[in-house]
Amino acid sequence: MVGHAFMGAAHSQAWRTAPRFFDLPMQVAMRVVCGRDAARTEQAAERLGWDEAETDWRRLLERDDVDLVDICTPGDSHAEIAIAALRAGKHVLCEKPLANTVAEAEEMTAAAEAAAEHGVRAMVGFTYRRVPAIALARRLVQQGRIGEIRHVRAQYLQDWIADPEAPMSWRLDKTLAGSGALGDIGAHVIDLTQFITGESVTEVSGQLETFVKERPIAAGETSGSLGGGGATEERGQVTVDDAAVFLAHLSGGALGVYEATRFATGRKNAIRIEVNGSKGSLAFDFEDMNVLEFFDATEPVEVQGFRRILVTEPEHPYVAAWWPAGHGLGYEHGFTHQVVDLVTALAAGGQPEPSFADGLQVQRVLAAVERSSETRSWQPVAQ
Amino acid sequence: MVGHAFMGAAHSQAWRTAPRFFDLPMQVAMRVVCGRDAARTEQAAERLGWDEAETDWRRLLERDDVDLVDICTPGDSHAEIAIAALRAGKHVLCEKPLANTVAEAEEMTAAAEAAAEHGVRAMVGFTYRRVPAIALARRLVQQGRIGEIRHVRAQYLQDWIADPEAPMSWRLDKTLAGSGALGDIGAHVIDLTQFITGESVTEVSGQLETFVKERPIAAGETSGSLGGGGATEERGQVTVDDAAVFLAHLSGGALGVYEATRFATGRKNAIRIEVNGSKGSLAFDFEDMNVLEFFDATEPVEVQGFRRILVTEPEHPYVAAWWPAGHGLGYEHGFTHQVVDLVTALAAGGQPEPSFADGLQVQRVLAAVERSSETRSWQPVAQ
Amino acid sequence: MVGHAFMGAAHSQAWRTAPRFFDLPMQVAMRVVCGRDAARTEQAAERLGWDEAETDWRRLLERDDVDLVDICTPGDSHAEIAIAALRAGKHVLCEKPLANTVAEAEEMTAAAEAAAEHGVRAMVGFTYRRVPAIALARRLVQQGRIGEIRHVRAQYLQDWIADPEAPMSWRLDKTLAGSGALGDIGAHVIDLTQFITGESVTEVSGQLETFVKERPIAAGETSGSLGGGGATEERGQVTVDDAAVFLAHLSGGALGVYEATRFATGRKNAIRIEVNGSKGSLAFDFEDMNVLEFFDATEPVEVQGFRRILVTEPEHPYVAAWWPAGHGLGYEHGFTHQVVDLVTALAAGGQPEPSFADGLQVQRVLAAVERSSETRSWQPVAQ
Amino acid sequence: MVGHAFMGAAHSQAWRTAPRFFDLPMQVAMRVVCGRDAARTEQAAERLGWDEAETDWRRLLERDDVDLVDICTPGDSHAEIAIAALRAGKHVLCEKPLANTVAEAEEMTAAAEAAAEHGVRAMVGFTYRRVPAIALARRLVQQGRIGEIRHVRAQYLQDWIADPEAPMSWRLDKTLAGSGALGDIGAHVIDLTQFITGESVTEVSGQLETFVKERPIAAGETSGSLGGGGATEERGQVTVDDAAVFLAHLSGGALGVYEATRFATGRKNAIRIEVNGSKGSLAFDFEDMNVLEFFDATEPVEVQGFRRILVTEPEHPYVAAWWPAGHGLGYEHGFTHQVVDLVTALAAGGQPEPSFADGLQVQRVLAAVERSSETRSWQPVAQ
Repeated sequence: MVGHAFMGAAHSQAWRTAPRFFDLPMQVAMRVVCGRDAARTEQAAERLGWDEAETDWRRLLERDDVDLVDICTPGDSHAEIAIAALRAGKHVLCEKPLANTVAEAEEMTAAAEAAAEHGVRAMVGFTYRRVPAIALARRLVQQGRIGEIRHVRAQYLQDWIADPEAPMSWRLDKTLAGSGALGDIGAHVIDLTQFITGESVTEVSGQLETFVKERPIAAGETSGSLGGGGATEERGQVTVDDAAVFLAHLSGGALGVYEATRFATGRKNAIRIEVNGSKGSLAFDFEDMNVLEFFDATEPVEVQGFRRILVTEPEHPYVAAWWPAGHGLGYEHGFTHQVVDLVTALAAGGQPEPSFADGLQVQRVLAAVERSSETRSWQPVAQ
Repeated sequence: MVGHAFMGAAHSQAWRTAPRFFDLPMQVAMRVVCGRDAARTEQAAERLGWDEAETDWRRLLERDDVDLVDICTPGDSHAEIAIAALRAGKHVLCEKPLANTVAEAEEMTAAAEAAAEHGVRAMVGFTYRRVPAIALARRLVQQGRIGEIRHVRAQYLQDWIADPEAPMSWRLDKTLAGSGALGDIGAHVIDLTQFITGESVTEVSGQLETFVKERPIAAGETSGSLGGGGATEERGQVTVDDAAVFLAHLSGGALGVYEATRFATGRKNAIRIEVNGSKGSLAFDFEDMNVLEFFDATEPVEVQGFRRILVTEPEHPYVAAWWPAGHGLGYEHGFTHQVVDLVTALAAGGQPEPSFADGLQVQRVLAAVERSSETRSWQPVAQ
Repeated sequence: MVGHAFMGAAHSQAWRTAPRFFDLPMQVAMRVVCGRDAARTEQAAERLGWDEAETDWRRLLERDDVDLVDICTPGDSHAEIAIAALRAGKHVLCEKPLANTVAEAEEMTAAAEAAAEHGVRAMVGFTYRRVPAIALARRLVQQGRIGEIRHVRAQYLQDWIADPEAPMSWRLDKTLAGSGALGDIGAHVIDLTQFITGESVTEVSGQLETFVKERPIAAGETSGSLGGGGATEERGQVTVDDAAVFLAHLSGGALGVYEATRFATGRKNAIRIEVNGSKGSLAFDFEDMNVLEFFDATEPVEVQGFRRILVTEPEHPYVAAWWPAGHGLGYEHGFTHQVVDLVTALAAGGQPEPSFADGLQVQRVLAAVERSSETRSWQPVAQ
Repeated sequence: MVGHAFMGAAHSQAWRTAPRFFDLPMQVAMRVVCGRDAARTEQAAERLGWDEAETDWRRLLERDDVDLVDICTPGDSHAEIAIAALRAGKHVLCEKPLANTVAEAEEMTAAAEAAAEHGVRAMVGFTYRRVPAIALARRLVQQGRIGEIRHVRAQYLQDWIADPEAPMSWRLDKTLAGSGALGDIGAHVIDLTQFITGESVTEVSGQLETFVKERPIAAGETSGSLGGGGATEERGQVTVDDAAVFLAHLSGGALGVYEATRFATGRKNAIRIEVNGSKGSLAFDFEDMNVLEFFDATEPVEVQGFRRILVTEPEHPYVAAWWPAGHGLGYEHGFTHQVVDLVTALAAGGQPEPSFADGLQVQRVLAAVERSSETRSWQPVAQ
């Protein structure tokens, strides 16, 4: 595994936990974690449960006891590591977004397709797909219970920089982060709505907005090394979007409305998705993540209503491996399910989903939104 | 109509409104309102839309143009007025509780049964039965969609005297009010659960509680004439229950848990009823009164869930007469529906429900709870 | 009053009820209702409580006993009637949308401004402003509790034509209805968000969509006289929008996302508004209309949360005149509050709100959305 | 660890996970798991992450490398194992309920007190205390924000045997399980309400109910060896309670209403607790476990409301160790928190909570409810 911050911790927990609850078709061993700083990586190895620590990711590719490289670094290094790993014959699990640019994502996808010919597989980590309620939503669409889809409304609402005096961070610097709310959280709802509906976004009209253009730089930091600490009077430029909104057409004729923001005061991690079809509707909110709401318009009117399905029954996706009915899962369970799906696909010699091609397609939607915001016009999503 | 306070206003609005939205089988004329104080009754007549005002209710019984007497006075005068009216050949609508004692309620029921032989009808006003969501709940039980009922849990939660310095009022004096939370609001949930389930409470084990035993008497009042106004240092004795809780057996084998309180801080008028049966469950909360929740256990497990039925479709009870789908009703609509049901029954020569016998049965449950609290034992409900 | 269909019934109930619950500074008399068909108008007069019936609205303007004309007709006749009434010295209450075109709305506004110089007043009927929870939302913004507003998300979701075999209706014919979901229900959320925030929409980028372009014509109807009845094989063209979505900039810098649709399966009359500011947030859903959610970001983090304010306390707007705490209001109460506000403003000699100028501004937003959808570009709202 | 079924899996996950996310003051090593069947225990050791397997729990007490014994067996063996372990100088974590009888629980408590003199500690596993929302509830009570407590209403609702044809299981046989819903799930809400309020139940009046008295015995089972499998025509006697309800007085004067049932159709694991006090109220539902509702009656009436606190902020109990704000936790996190609290107390040489004495007190409440149901009268809780 390369990277051992927030995502590294989540992935490590998943690798540790998956074999404890699921019957995996292959054995998993957590060989080596890689980071830049030797001491901190050693600590991380111990804390997160890896056998060894390493400071150069290239050395991982030379090891025979490494079959898969799990990339949890910031987006700007994804392409280089992933392509090298695939060429070295290692399977790759790469955190989202696939890359910081469409060009990089295209190269990665080409590399993945070349590797696939040799049975080497690449997967991108949109873990929210593995929340049981989301997986159930997709299943209901596939069963035809929603009918022809007319509306998709999707929001990813956070509020961690709603305060104008919240300090600068590398996430607010375009040269480091690539994008703001759009790529960080908007990417998730794009992927989720496409996953649930089985349709893809084909055209968008969007607007990026930066509400607070200057922020205090924390004491002890310079504008070139942003991070935590007390506030000073120096201020840095915010060069990414605080919020992104866009209208969309989907391939099956649905009309989409999307919103991703870090300024929705009071909403902490609210991923809200609603789908309206000719036969029914679905609604999901990550703030109540074990629930899927489903409206069945084919029932007698008298008893129609959005039903609150508590997605904690053994009959529901992924749930049987865990606890008895009604015992809810949390955020990190999606990562464990991701490991299960990945290992299962690899053991079967198949393509794990979502593929790099899927990640590339999301990247193209993000790029179209950015172009649309600049040109103030509708923009097609490249094929 | 006798009485023109809170209930008088609600009943007047119902008499005025019913013929505007429903096709009543008889014409309604609002002849005369009766109160103790001539001037205030005159004002009320004008405000509430009655042709005339009167200060002696006996005179109403002598009038040929009065066919029905609507009793909205406090409980201690219900028996006298209702019995006289029925003997005078007037139909009677009497607010709940039917009376302050079981003995009075029995006399009233006897008078109602005697009058019925001459086609003169009596009805008691449990208006919450006429909330569309409640009427739908009963319908679903009758259709067998809940199956055999195992649990009834019912709460009527208010908080208007949760503050220990809230002043004395006649409602807190047993000699005037007869009872506290038990009779005032507990009576409603007893009636509602019996109405919905079609079962009756047969045995109870309860506890009455008075949390605050002394309260300030408002300035300008003496302990013999309680009412509003600023607080003084004089304090009066609270002689009724602040809260009543009881366990119950119902005639069909269900186990009931009931609670009525004026001390549920933050709950303003929360009538909550939940019924669990072998085939399904129902849940209702008056704080969201246009909704009935329904769980259907006969569906595939994968899509089971409490559905939130918005009871605002033309297919739902009473709703077709009002607005388009989704346009909710409010508190007072139940009173209008009561007028509709009453007038419809009278025109058809039938017995409007709930009858005085139904009101008497609720009274007997209340009495059993009081006996149980005193004797600290289970008490049967008299037949 | 001119017109006696759905809106006529709602307005009549309001005129009848307002003086029963509120202390109006002027007496209200319901003189005459006007409709095209003499017999049906007679019936309506009796049913709705008007003294007389009339078939030519011009005759109302000649009567000395008519001080105010309440226009409840379809939008295509608003301009003619309102302008004539104002010129005849009658106050005017005109249902929304003010008119079918901006040009008409401009004429009406000019007429209203001319009339105002003589103390004759005009008001447009955006009644949802008078839902207590909405009025409270505005109050909290005005008190500064939300801070600088960053996000407005507003949806008006219905589903009455989600079924492709739902029959044609005059509302789906552009020559008669002027507009579809956009003008009918989108207008409401535009007005509400501007009312609550005190900001106005300045620029939009939108998309209108007609999902079902042909619908069956009910038996007994020709394509020239659309209405109810059984389905035939003849099909009519739907010439208005089924759904409208748009992005918006507001005058204070907020980013808006709006959606109005008749295809949101399972949503009956869901007016949902969420406002995020630097100090707090607000959320409202008409399907739970007695509740306003409020998040206060100035509190200690530990106890922050969206609070569900049950807007049924005497301290809340309009509520003191009705029932005790916790007894919810329904859809039509907004109309009664509209009468109260109108009569109060007239008695004080002031301008009732919203004025025709306010209605015109909403009309201009609607027109900008239509232009944007045609040109596929951002469009400014005319000043 | 002794036992490796449902609870064993949950405890193992906790022991594995706690050191990964929390800075524990002592190192944790998972030495040996103990079960009856050698082969299955070997499998469990590998699956759950224990170094070794063992079939005789006595051998654990002889090992120097075992400092703590974690007891996850059924209740009938708790006393023997716990007492022996404590005498052998091993710390003990014992699953709830502490024992099947009060007598056993008393012996265990005496053993725990004796051991404590030598610094050997015993703790009972009421893990729901460690759900962050519950811990926050207790904190708010301790801060005085709820004031004097008047009402406690607590329900633990499940539905796994609501179907009368659900087969017999050892859990429905009193000789094996000791108790039904009362001890299995009622114990949890008794502990939680006492934990949150800081008060203890002093007197109860309750009713146990067995709705379905005979159930099919699964094929391949005899009435002496109950378990899963297909249904036969043989039927077994259900000898425990399906549901338990009781009224209670708490030591601070609050009135309690408790309900525990396996027949609440549609409720899967609904632990619902509501507390009303003179200054505020709290409400919790495990079906939405990351939320605590809090009503603050000291605020201005205009903005009072139950606030939905999303208990996922770093400021909330236990949360800082996990994910960013808004990323919810699941059922098993409580077990991890239990390990953290236990290890922290042991390292500090203090008494971990809840102690065996706390477990005994809950046991005494259960016994009082059973006595009350038999005698149909109020029963004091033994001191």
